[in-house]
Amino acid sequence: MTKPTLLTLVPEEINKIKAASLEILERTGVNIDHAYAREVLQAAGAKVDGERVYFPPKLVIEAIAKAPRQFSIYARNPKNSIIVGAGDPVFAPGYGAPYVTLASGLKRKATFADFTKLAKLSGSSSNMGISGGVLVEPSDIPEQNRHNAMLYACMVNSDKPFMGSATGEKHAKDSLRMAATLFESDNGIPKQPVMISLINTITPLMLDERMVGALIAYAEAGQPVIIASLGMAGATSPTTLAGTLALQNAEVLAGITLAQTIREGTPVIYGSASSITEMRNGSLSIGAPEGAWIIASAVQIAHSYGLPCRAGGCVTDSKTLDLQASYESMMNLQVAGMAGVDFVLHAAGILESYMSVSLEKFIVDDEICSIVRRFLRGTKIETEDLAVQLIDEVGPGGQYLTADHTYQNFRTEFWPPTLSNRETYDQWRLNGSLPMINQAEKRVNEIIDNYEIPYLDKSIELKLKEMAGI
Amino acid sequence: MTKPTLLTLVPEEINKIKAASLEILERTGVNIDHAYAREVLQAAGAKVDGERVYFPPKLVIEAIAKAPRQFSIYARNPKNSIIVGAGDPVFAPGYGAPYVTLASGLKRKATFADFTKLAKLSGSSSNMGISGGVLVEPSDIPEQNRHNAMLYACMVNSDKPFMGSATGEKHAKDSLRMAATLFESDNGIPKQPVMISLINTITPLMLDERMVGALIAYAEAGQPVIIASLGMAGATSPTTLAGTLALQNAEVLAGITLAQTIREGTPVIYGSASSITEMRNGSLSIGAPEGAWIIASAVQIAHSYGLPCRAGGCVTDSKTLDLQASYESMMNLQVAGMAGVDFVLHAAGILESYMSVSLEKFIVDDEICSIVRRFLRGTKIETEDLAVQLIDEVGPGGQYLTADHTYQNFRTEFWPPTLSNRETYDQWRLNGSLPMINQAEKRVNEIIDNYEIPYLDKSIELKLKEMAGI
Repeated sequence: MTKPTLLTLVPEEINKIKAASLEILERTGVNIDHAYAREVLQAAGAKVDGERVYFPPKLVIEAIAKAPRQFSIYARNPKNSIIVGAGDPVFAPGYGAPYVTLASGLKRKATFADFTKLAKLSGSSSNMGISGGVLVEPSDIPEQNRHNAMLYACMVNSDKPFMGSATGEKHAKDSLRMAATLFESDNGIPKQPVMISLINTITPLMLDERMVGALIAYAEAGQPVIIASLGMAGATSPTTLAGTLALQNAEVLAGITLAQTIREGTPVIYGSASSITEMRNGSLSIGAPEGAWIIASAVQIAHSYGLPCRAGGCVTDSKTLDLQASYESMMNLQVAGMAGVDFVLHAAGILESYMSVSLEKFIVDDEICSIVRRFLRGTKIETEDLAVQLIDEVGPGGQYLTADHTYQNFRTEFWPPTLSNRETYDQWRLNGSLPMINQAEKRVNEIIDNYEIPYLDKSIELKLKEMAGI
Repeated sequence: MTKPTLLTLVPEEINKIKAASLEILERTGVNIDHAYAREVLQAAGAKVDGERVYFPPKLVIEAIAKAPRQFSIYARNPKNSIIVGAGDPVFAPGYGAPYVTLASGLKRKATFADFTKLAKLSGSSSNMGISGGVLVEPSDIPEQNRHNAMLYACMVNSDKPFMGSATGEKHAKDSLRMAATLFESDNGIPKQPVMISLINTITPLMLDERMVGALIAYAEAGQPVIIASLGMAGATSPTTLAGTLALQNAEVLAGITLAQTIREGTPVIYGSASSITEMRNGSLSIGAPEGAWIIASAVQIAHSYGLPCRAGGCVTDSKTLDLQASYESMMNLQVAGMAGVDFVLHAAGILESYMSVSLEKFIVDDEICSIVRRFLRGTKIETEDLAVQLIDEVGPGGQYLTADHTYQNFRTEFWPPTLSNRETYDQWRLNGSLPMINQAEKRVNEIIDNYEIPYLDKSIELKLKEMAGI
């Protein structure tokens, strides 16, 4: 039962990229728009000049060594606690899109009702390990308490782990207080890791005040963070994929060094979201094969540091749930899975280079997640599996349908599809040959109509609701 | 520039499967419905009892060692000659479907006109290394000369290598004579490898008279053959994927042993087409993740013998060019490519578990082939690619769009899509947001309307036409 492994780089190539990143961190440095962060790093040995922080290799290497290779995130339902970095990828839904694309193809600004529906889809999915973060940006909630409203919806609609706000120190502390309330911790901080947050660098080589503020708040509270870089090769990072990997790596290491300097052992995930620029219009392409190659390579780099990695997802540049959305999503999720990714943000729903989410695509992507998980499971190669005795008994020209061995094994060996159609042509016509997007639409409604919100103590729910200001 | 590599089995597991196959070949044997084949194998050391042939391990191992790891197939246009087993996969179009599915979704029996169109699509594709074999089964050509008519269409509409008929000794000899005519060889046999043919076993453990007859004719003529097995796990092979791999391997090795016994050094490709049975209706599923896992594993087994491998393709169970067709095709082609497959039959057009071909899907699959090829190409990781100097010059917050480095590299580093849409939402709406299937339909017509049939000496063409009986 070997885990499928995809390798795109040999160790010598990984070392070249890592050496380049250390050189960038030492020679060029990173602009960090946060005075306290600069102070802390300076005290740890970094050179600071204005906003610019120059990282000595020793500081970076020692910081990386302090980060755990795997860690748990505890859910209020213990059955839904997850381990990041233990071998199987954790899937999390799409994050941050301002729009929703309907089954009709029409697109509109996302609302809190959309958000809640997505939280339910995520809650009901056996593939999603995380209920959500910014499932969409609900335009009908005022910005000042949007982060709390979103967190409330994730917390009450599902008993899985969730994602905290990353838009500044204040928002992060709001998230921590709500998590403490949910987990009934007195001092405003959850007692153990119960959430994860997405800290993005600004490429090239910048960390802004809001993200750093959130990072520090979570690190001080012992809560996991993803430190992610999104370089657009050709626009915000070098056109060569090697250069983009080196730059991305430098940025992620800067963030991880800060997190470990704030608090040793902070659970961090090495996040890679870089891809290429479509040179015809200067836009980000997340469905490009070069992006898929970066995914696989970033996983190898992260693992060479002993860090869990976030990369990939069912991501696409397509504007609608179509053939392109389908093949790009499969390409990116499959590559991430095979490369051994630990955490997959955007595993369901994303369209249009992160600009929109489709509820129907969430359902199709959930099927793709199942497919990839089945592939990754592989199979046993033991004597009873090789079935030489059975093959001899059946002999040339025989059949296996009625063999006990078949009956004993098919349920565990074969993955049962939910959406993928394996009917004969005639069955398919007879059964209405409903397009997958319409099947997915039906499934969305079924899930939402029948969704059972997990039990939560009424007094806790009321407190959370009050904190959320809704 | 490392070639991406996908591994699903460790050497110990490969050895277990190989040992199981040798045990099957020795203990259970294979029914070979061809007296001369049995005689030849018996003379080489096999035990024969009625139709059953039992293979001693030594015979099999020695035969495998005689087969080349790579070989050339020469095209009449030398630029189109191909090497099988040199590292890059050779793509060949879909093979053997009796139906054509139209863009409207309607399905009908395939005709010779469809066949000719497919030969042109294949001829025009920069991804397809082979013009075609049974591109579809043209129902309007009488069966007795259908094989010759198909070969004629492949030979005249394209100057790429082609596939010979595998439906019996007589048909194979017809193909050889036509190839000899095309290449102006006097003795009815081409002087070098110019074609390849698909020899299928009948699972479990049978080789029928027609396939063996063709195999012998091609082996004697020094023309390459694919020896392929298609086990349906749970119906014609064990439900456990391990057992299916062991059985498939035994069958392929039996065919290769016969080919090498007929003529040492016959170029052979180890062919894996096995997948699982959909237990709800007993039909073959070629879009299943278990099938993809078998693809990757078979490539590893073949390579461990020093044999080139055929596996994978843009194959799907879907009845129409839809989301499922798209993600299953990407899954299967990507896995094959990453595993290092040498020859990909069914790389374009297949729908409905091999039952039908779509011309529009041919175009979409051709895009998928391009995507996978770009991924497989990887990138260089040299000093100039890592661009540390440039990163320093651009600095934090800068941009790379106007850098010389970008201008010098983007054309080689970035793959330019043909169908995949990377417009912004507004551009896409403004430009008509034509669904990909309709774009593909337009492209089919453009290619066929503008197709330039490559030059062929008129007298040769007339001879071929006469031989084809059309």
